[in-house]
Amino acid sequence: MTTESSSVDDTLLEFLHMEAVKLLEEGSTGEGMNTATTKLDTMGFRVGIALVERCSADTMRFKDELDMMRFLCKDFWLATFMKQIDNLRTNHQGVYVLQDSQFRFLTNVAEGTQYLQTAQSLLAFSCGVVRGALFNLGLTCSVTVEVTNLPVCKFHVTVI
Amino acid sequence: MTTESSSVDDTLLEFLHMEAVKLLEEGSTGEGMNTATTKLDTMGFRVGIALVERCSADTMRFKDELDMMRFLCKDFWLATFMKQIDNLRTNHQGVYVLQDSQFRFLTNVAEGTQYLQTAQSLLAFSCGVVRGALFNLGLTCSVTVEVTNLPVCKFHVTVI
Repeated sequence: MTTESSSVDDTLLEFLHMEAVKLLEEGSTGEGMNTATTKLDTMGFRVGIALVERCSADTMRFKDELDMMRFLCKDFWLATFMKQIDNLRTNHQGVYVLQDSQFRFLTNVAEGTQYLQTAQSLLAFSCGVVRGALFNLGLTCSVTVEVTNLPVCKFHVTVI
Repeated sequence: MTTESSSVDDTLLEFLHMEAVKLLEEGSTGEGMNTATTKLDTMGFRVGIALVERCSADTMRFKDELDMMRFLCKDFWLATFMKQIDNLRTNHQGVYVLQDSQFRFLTNVAEGTQYLQTAQSLLAFSCGVVRGALFNLGLTCSVTVEVTNLPVCKFHVTVI
């Protein structure tokens, strides 16, 4: 029962997320589409700020920026997206690439290049979540996402 | 770790829900407020339809309307809102009152009569979920909610 109920709960979250994306995109084209993406990103930003508060409560202070990114990729990602980041790369100059090979909000999207645009909208909220989490840890960043092969995605984080 | 991670996940759902409500209400007053509530209800309706599909997949056919309502109050409520309904009443003529004494989306709302209006907006999506679930089970209903004492709420279901 526990497994079943938690899996339905997952579904509630995914459906609600999908509806929020749909709602913002309704009738949006061109510039309206940008506004929708920005709104989703802003929603995510606020949620990320609040979420990181919960899961870093009993975490020690971070040694450096890389240490903070490791926390994001492990503890925060697991608590928020139910798995850890699969690959973290950095140029050691403030640019990080986080690869998730099976991102939570993409697992139900059919594979195929024609869905890449849909995938981008589905990730705007999550980009905001990442930005908000890092902001609350003390890092102001820009976060973009690259999807070339569903359900793999790469978050590009640039510390400003 | 499992408990922690699932509790943060709950938080993600609650924050996303809160943001969706906030987004729709932004700058809405009077009639705009009604539109926001209707949109939330419609979002919920679609989600309810999809959710009930998942959790009634291996459920036997229902004997009658009351049997269906019992399923809604027990299995569906548990899977969706993490607990069962505390009290179910009916006049045996198509009117049902479902009381939840600690409703999931109200647990974080401060108590006090000044928050009752906020509570109403927070429940529009859930009313839609209930309506969608029943619709997919074969019952067309109207669903309203009454909140007089947070976090207790009563869903009034009228079969049409």
